[in-house]
Amino acid sequence: MISLKEAEKILGKFHFNKTGYIKIEESYGRVLAEDIRSNIDIPRFDRSDIDGYAVTELLDEYILIDEVFAGDNKNLEIKGNECVSVATGGKVPKNTKYIIPIENTVRVGNKIVVVSFDRIEGISKKGCDVKKGDIVLKKGTLINERNIGVLAGLGIDEVKVYKTPKVGIISTGNELFKMTKDVNSKTIAEVVKKAKCEPIFLGLVRDEFDIIREKIIKASKKCDIIVTSGGVSVGERDFLPKVVDDLGKILFHKIKMRPGMPMLFGKINKKPIFCMPGNVVSCLICSYVFLLPFLMRMTHRTYKRRIIKAKLSEKITSEPDFLYLRPVKLKNGIAYPIFKGSNIITSILDADGLAIIKEHELKKNEGDTVQVWIF
Amino acid sequence: MISLKEAEKILGKFHFNKTGYIKIEESYGRVLAEDIRSNIDIPRFDRSDIDGYAVTELLDEYILIDEVFAGDNKNLEIKGNECVSVATGGKVPKNTKYIIPIENTVRVGNKIVVVSFDRIEGISKKGCDVKKGDIVLKKGTLINERNIGVLAGLGIDEVKVYKTPKVGIISTGNELFKMTKDVNSKTIAEVVKKAKCEPIFLGLVRDEFDIIREKIIKASKKCDIIVTSGGVSVGERDFLPKVVDDLGKILFHKIKMRPGMPMLFGKINKKPIFCMPGNVVSCLICSYVFLLPFLMRMTHRTYKRRIIKAKLSEKITSEPDFLYLRPVKLKNGIAYPIFKGSNIITSILDADGLAIIKEHELKKNEGDTVQVWIF
Repeated sequence: MISLKEAEKILGKFHFNKTGYIKIEESYGRVLAEDIRSNIDIPRFDRSDIDGYAVTELLDEYILIDEVFAGDNKNLEIKGNECVSVATGGKVPKNTKYIIPIENTVRVGNKIVVVSFDRIEGISKKGCDVKKGDIVLKKGTLINERNIGVLAGLGIDEVKVYKTPKVGIISTGNELFKMTKDVNSKTIAEVVKKAKCEPIFLGLVRDEFDIIREKIIKASKKCDIIVTSGGVSVGERDFLPKVVDDLGKILFHKIKMRPGMPMLFGKINKKPIFCMPGNVVSCLICSYVFLLPFLMRMTHRTYKRRIIKAKLSEKITSEPDFLYLRPVKLKNGIAYPIFKGSNIITSILDADGLAIIKEHELKKNEGDTVQVWIF
Repeated sequence: MISLKEAEKILGKFHFNKTGYIKIEESYGRVLAEDIRSNIDIPRFDRSDIDGYAVTELLDEYILIDEVFAGDNKNLEIKGNECVSVATGGKVPKNTKYIIPIENTVRVGNKIVVVSFDRIEGISKKGCDVKKGDIVLKKGTLINERNIGVLAGLGIDEVKVYKTPKVGIISTGNELFKMTKDVNSKTIAEVVKKAKCEPIFLGLVRDEFDIIREKIIKASKKCDIIVTSGGVSVGERDFLPKVVDDLGKILFHKIKMRPGMPMLFGKINKKPIFCMPGNVVSCLICSYVFLLPFLMRMTHRTYKRRIIKAKLSEKITSEPDFLYLRPVKLKNGIAYPIFKGSNIITSILDADGLAIIKEHELKKNEGDTVQVWIF
């Protein structure tokens, strides 16, 4: 039996570095596996910031020789007292030094008379926003909606990102075929989706060595990571330890933590396999504690536990050497324990997080400050 | 021209109350439109919490008469010195009062000898977790992964939730057909997805009254909410105000806010239409400020602005009566303004949030504390 920290160290040895190209519209929350350089200047040309007249020197009067709207690609040139009407975003003529705002002028035929000089707006020079060849987004960037806009602006349709692993989920237990509904595959799948990975539900299996073995062989071919629930303890029908040992290697079994103690972790053909306890509360807590941070790291993102402090509404006792994680409901800075048993689904229904009773603490009294790991 | 608060008041008059059934696997982040009652007791029967022997009274020795594994549906009964071996989660026989842990016993043939009484574990009584008829989740609940597990446990496959609106997105501007890439439809779509609504990109349209009008008529038939960008100012080719006025009603046009001042909001056949400015920074900021909270409310969720305090690295000046929202990069509690112009995409690329200069403030100096609205 090992501690949470030792378990995390073992999990930390796995990596996932597959990359692939995806459309920018699907890239939100993914991590860039390449530097993004611009192939173009933005703006692509000297661009007017306002509606006005492009001029080459400051005079009182100009002759209007042409007009440019946004999107026009005219190659105009002005000199002396010539001016060209340019809309916001429009390409300015060669030699343009200033844009005189339209509201500071009066037009008489093709003559433009300046009536106020109080605001001379400029021009956005070609490449002033982004220069051709610039690194715009670095490898390792977690792509957000603003990045996607910028990528679109650069004319980039696809980017190279780290792939997200396929996570095969298997629920074991004879009871799932008759008396009890399968809860664990649903909560595991949601934790997988939270990490932006792809859950693949591979079905229910009975407590039989050969059937479980076959299912896991299939999963190890089809998926990058396998997560099972149930059959992980030491009972007569707990076949997961035997199957993992037969097909690969058990890296740890049993953690000094409650709920979640019976959890097993191993590898089969270099692929990680998480065998969660069958009790719904234990399975969910192991998924939060081990699977979620693991998947975040596999997808090259950082995972930070959100921990707050609260006062306990009642005493919690624990065992020496064991980490206790007790579901609590939070209200006005008070943590109310709602744990009724690791097989009681309402223990997690209203929970906002897990109160942490550390290995050496043994108990926390009513009114004591406790750290709560927010879901 | 109206203030942000007045604009929010107008937006607050719209509601969206369509409901529909979805599979629980797709219900994460959605809001329940019904109370969920349990049709079953959980557990469905008196269940053993451990591996042990079910007995009806505390004795030193028992006769083993049968065994029960999880999932077995045997209707057994014990009396006197009889016992039944029951696995964790197994259905206990009639008359069971205690479960004696297997590790506290020695088995000799069909005789079970108790060697230690130090831990007598109990039974989870039928319905102790959830009682048939109980309200398990209330209308208005924002569904999380734990709720999904509980719904699965109750045998519920589908739930009634508030529907999420379809948001039609249109980009206008001749320049988008030639010189400039369409950024706005991408950033708007990502903001829509952030609110868990469905973006439907309806294409680019040229700056022509009839074409824009036709496109918006189509959008108002197909979608619940319309969002356009561009053509919303007062230039010769800014047709959005005319089109909205023609097809429906302008509810506000121009807000005392920069960037984002030219924004328009109206309704067409009772459907809200947001006409965002064409400048990429203005469009994105209007999407954050108005569209995101609006969509969250339409989907019956609450939206809280995440505001932190930071010190300004340099002076920002504003105009009387105008709210200024300036993109800033945050580092060690310092807010670095990175606004280079509302048409400069790199103004948002590295931004972490928007520094808020309120209507009456006029300026914030270097070192002043400023509120930053985190994206």
